[in-house]
Parts: sequence; C-alpha cells; structure tokens
Amino acid sequence: LARHRHESQHAIPLPDELSLDRGKGEQLHELLEAYIAKLRPGDLLPSERVLAERLGVARMTVRQEFERLTVQGLVRRQHGQGTFVAEPKLVQTDHVSSFSEDMWARGKTPGSRVISVRVQTADPVSAMRLQLRPEAEVVNIVRVRTGDGEPIALERTNLPADRFPGLEHADLSNASLYELVERRWHVRIDRAEQRISAVLPDAEDARLLEMSPKLPAFLIERVTRDADGGVIEFGRSLYRGDRYDVLMNVSRVPN
Amino acid sequence: LARHRHESQHAIPLPDELSLDRGKGEQLHELLEAYIAKLRPGDLLPSERVLAERLGVARMTVRQEFERLTVQGLVRRQHGQGTFVAEPKLVQTDHVSSFSEDMWARGKTPGSRVISVRVQTADPVSAMRLQLRPEAEVVNIVRVRTGDGEPIALERTNLPADRFPGLEHADLSNASLYELVERRWHVRIDRAEQRISAVLPDAEDARLLEMSPKLPAFLIERVTRDADGGVIEFGRSLYRGDRYDVLMNVSRVPN
Repeated sequence: LARHRHESQHAIPLPDELSLDRGKGEQLHELLEAYIAKLRPGDLLPSERVLAERLGVARMTVRQEFERLTVQGLVRRQHGQGTFVAEPKLVQTDHVSSFSEDMWARGKTPGSRVISVRVQTADPVSAMRLQLRPEAEVVNIVRVRTGDGEPIALERTNLPADRFPGLEHADLSNASLYELVERRWHVRIDRAEQRISAVLPDAEDARLLEMSPKLPAFLIERVTRDADGGVIEFGRSLYRGDRYDVLMNVSRVPN
Repeated sequence: LARHRHESQHAIPLPDELSLDRGKGEQLHELLEAYIAKLRPGDLLPSERVLAERLGVARMTVRQEFERLTVQGLVRRQHGQGTFVAEPKLVQTDHVSSFSEDMWARGKTPGSRVISVRVQTADPVSAMRLQLRPEAEVVNIVRVRTGDGEPIALERTNLPADRFPGLEHADLSNASLYELVERRWHVRIDRAEQRISAVLPDAEDARLLEMSPKLPAFLIERVTRDADGGVIEFGRSLYRGDRYDVLMNVSRVPN
C-alpha cells in the first residue's frame, strides 16, 4: 500500500485570522475543504495545534472540524502520526454496475468475504419485491464487499431459486454475481430501481463492516430487472458512509 | 393534522414463534417491516410487551428493532401512547425538481424559514464549483425547508451575484427559488449533478432541523446548469434521514 506523504503544511497559504462575522467552525471547515482539494491522498495536514495557533481558534474547534472531515471521509487520522488526506471516496453512478466493476473503475481490486449462501423461504418483503408467491424459495447471498481488502459494503441479496438453479454452489468469493448470471443463465441485466436511505448500522453489521455503529451508512435497496422487465434480484446493501458517495445526474425534464 | 388511528394489532396474524436458525432481531425486523407495509400511516403497532410475549423474544430485542425502525423513518413513537406507522418518507427522484415541487407532489404544503440571505465573497469551494474567479460575489441563501410545517431540509445555496442582481431582496420565505429565477431572469434550468453523502449533522444544523445530532442525514451537493451548460447554482443541503429517501432509476448501459 504505497502512500506518498508530503510535509505540506507550508505549501499552501492559510489566512492569518478568521473573519468575525461568521462562525469560526464554518469558516475553518470551508478553509480545510479547499486546502484538502489542492492536496493529494496521503498528504499530511497541519496539526491541531498549528492550526489553532495560526488561526486564533480553540483547539477543540479544530478537533471538531477534523472529526467532521473524518466522518465525511475526506481525511484519515492516524494515532500519533497526524491527519492525512484520505483516498477519494468510491462512488456509485447512475448506471447499473456491479460492485466489482465499480472497484475496477477506481483502480481498486474488488474482493468478497462470503458470510452465507443459502436457499431459503423468501422473507415477506423480498417475496413482494421479487413478485414471487409467498413462501417461494430464494437464493440468499450475504457478502462483505472489499476494495483493496478494506470493507466497503455489506451486501444482502436475493434471487429466485427456480430461475437460477445451482447458484448456491457457485464460488462467489472473487466473482461478480452479475457477470455470473449473465454468462451462465444468459440473463440480460437491463435496469434497476434503487431506494437510498441514510441509516445507522446495527451492532452486528457495523462489526462486519469494521466501522462504528454510531457512524452513518447508506442503505441501498435495489430491484434489478432483465430485458423483459422481469425482476431477477432484490438486494439490500449497506455502504460505509465514510468510503462511499452516490453520484446522480438529473435533468429538469423527467427522464 | 388529521391522523387515523386504528387499533390494528389483531388485524394481521403474527407467527406464534420465530425460527431458531436465524437471528431473532433480524426475523423480527423482517416481520415488522412486512406488517407495517400492510398498514396505513397513523396505525398503532402492537406494544413491546405484546410482541415480546407473543414471539418469545426479550423486550430489549423488540425495543432495539423499534428504534431501528424509528431511525429508518418507518414508525414514530409517541411517549405514553405507543408506536405508530409513520407517514411515507419524502423522496427525491432523478429529475431536477425544486423542493417546493417535491412537496406538492407528495400532497404536502412546502414552506421555508429563511435563516439568512446575503451577498458575500464566495467561499473557495463554491467559487470553484460555480466556475467563478476567486473572490467573486455570490448570493448566499440559507433556508430551513418544511413540509406541512415540519423541518425536512437545511438548504445552503449560492448563485453568482452578477447574474441575479437583486435576488437578495426577493422574498424567499414561501417561494420556489427555481420558479423565481426562471420567471424573473429567464434562466432555463436544464440539469444538475448531485453528490450524495451520508453524514451526521453538526450541533447547530441538527438544532435547525429539530433532530438529534446522533442521527444520520444526507448531504446533497448540487451543481445546477442552464440550457447552455453554464453553472447557475452550487448548493449543499442537509436532509433528515428519517424523513427523506433518494430514488434512482439506473440502466445497465450508461446514460
């Protein structure tokens, strides 16, 4: 994991003091965001002490802003070493891509830790979304998705068992599920509807994602359809809020 | 505020016990979600005690699941009265709509509490996003947006001051900014790029949104363009996670 670390605190000028007519925290936040935008991942930020003295603000104010930037995924703090510019967050755009495709697009190696794969009776919400009769069987797949080995998402997905016979025996540890169903069952994945919520993970999900249960995550519910409009997948995935953003291009006239 | 409250705990059958081969919290969550899906806003859910006894789980487990459902915005707890099915969450879809339009589409009356409107030097990030020279002036508008009087979003937006002279004197308390600029400056709003993050609000923003700073929110950064592709707005809005979801239609082939 190569990291360039530059002693950068003298590279970019900081103002000598903050304006008096707006909140100091807000100004500090704007200043640090603009500062970070000009640096590269792994660059070292000025210390709390240096910033507090330079800008005439309390150290507590600087610490709070560093914490907000950490939650936003803009910086990473390393105990005893300082605060560094974080890698850019991973993003989801508005075409249906597999997690693996998203990772490769960012130059990261996708990986999966399979938590469980089993054929089971669909829970009521999954049966409804998959347009299956109640009590129909689904292949339920739970995986922790990683980028360069770090957990990014906890993916729970359900596919109709009778449409994908034997899927439960496939090796999903280093494979794209979409590529697999496209190749082996000749499904043409066409489109998906997603509902995105901002949530807190429960204790167990936070453990699997190696994050604090007090930090926010995205819950992304996805209904995926084939070229005929049939539903082939209903998934509910949790994405770490500090590692992932969603990008959306929207037009004034409804699509 | 009309509310229909039905004593519904006997209307829908609950199983007599939970399965032993999966976590009880997970099963309870699925059960309650399916149960809620069949009820109407304002319907009363069975009490913690009733559910715990009926399903043979600890009251603490039921309480935790009720809390998760509250964070998700699916139920509202009223002290001493019980737990009720919440109003459906407000959603943002993938066309550029104003907050006012989103509210009307949901049958809610949009409103705004103007926190501040001022002409100021653009902060560095806003200047970059608006493609303005550093130190250019913007009209900065901060509003709490409400639906039927309840705070939904805290909107901070910036428009180039020289393009919209006098905007700072407009009455924005009960107006759609988009309608105003379209009508008065003949701007054709065409499209926007949005970046959506899951965050925790800071103490001041949480206070304005009347929410706990420990609960998640969406930060939606939006760059809005006119028909010529020029940037007319850069906004950063915070949406309450328990009141708002984002819907996205995505296709397999990039748009």
